[in-house]
Amino acid sequence: MTSVQHDQIHRLARHYLEPGPVVLISSRYGGTVNVMTCGWHQMLGWSRMSCLISPANHSHAMIRESGVAVINVPAADMLDTLVDIGNCSGADTDKFARFGLERETAQVDAPGIAQCWAQLDCRITDPALIERYDLFVFDVVAIRAVPGERPQTAHYLGDGEFLLSGRTVSKRERFRPEMLL
Amino acid sequence: MTSVQHDQIHRLARHYLEPGPVVLISSRYGGTVNVMTCGWHQMLGWSRMSCLISPANHSHAMIRESGVAVINVPAADMLDTLVDIGNCSGADTDKFARFGLERETAQVDAPGIAQCWAQLDCRITDPALIERYDLFVFDVVAIRAVPGERPQTAHYLGDGEFLLSGRTVSKRERFRPEMLL
Repeated sequence: MTSVQHDQIHRLARHYLEPGPVVLISSRYGGTVNVMTCGWHQMLGWSRMSCLISPANHSHAMIRESGVAVINVPAADMLDTLVDIGNCSGADTDKFARFGLERETAQVDAPGIAQCWAQLDCRITDPALIERYDLFVFDVVAIRAVPGERPQTAHYLGDGEFLLSGRTVSKRERFRPEMLL
Repeated sequence: MTSVQHDQIHRLARHYLEPGPVVLISSRYGGTVNVMTCGWHQMLGWSRMSCLISPANHSHAMIRESGVAVINVPAADMLDTLVDIGNCSGADTDKFARFGLERETAQVDAPGIAQCWAQLDCRITDPALIERYDLFVFDVVAIRAVPGERPQTAHYLGDGEFLLSGRTVSKRERFRPEMLL
């Protein structure tokens, strides 16, 4: 997996996250690793994003304590796996082993998921919103992705249904130049 | 446009927003109406969502002062219009007039956009995060949408490019019953 240059993070973080795909959030704490499925996230700045992670998720305490996580974007061909990851708990399951996930070394103390086409290494910048809204505010400190590659992604509709992504269209010619970051 | 029953809001708000479409946020304040394009939003609860609205947007002060807004989800056939709405300012443009937007009566003091297939009436519940992150935390108090209808949506990739939505797939059979809300 190719590492994105540091000065490109502010341009590319939105490219992977803003369309709203379901992501896999991986973490490490107390000698164990874990992964959860999440669709409640947004951009908060050019290299800042937030995820809502309920305390009902085993990952909540792991990420809060370690202060870091990797946000992995799976392609739609992993849809069954990402549903199954969301329907079992790290409290009684070693999900990396059960789902055959390969760890990739990240720039934070949490494992990237090698099967995911984009991986964003994140560090908590503001723990105050965890208490208030279960909201983790992260700075994106590194990205691994294959440049130019964009596989189909899965977006959750609720009630067990997913929207798969279709084609890409450019509307660059309608933008004011300063709006094109 | 059909109003969704109040007890269905907690189930349907995510259906319209969680996949991550670009939305149009409409507002009214001081005798004027305005609309902006936004892709930085997420679910914060079953009937709660957040949007990042920069103070550089004319809508920022209007929504902060009025305390309400309508989040409208446009279909992809409005893509040129939603790009153009995002590339001009309510400070010097009457966007409802310029883009031929029809107002629909909402349950908050802001106009819905009749051309949008889903409209979520929202009320600010926590102004504290506006100061901290330009983040507006809204409760969804009413929804208008055509039941069962789901047109193609547009999702922003940055740099003038959009991802259009494709087909829907059900994975209900893989979910634990309690995960199906």
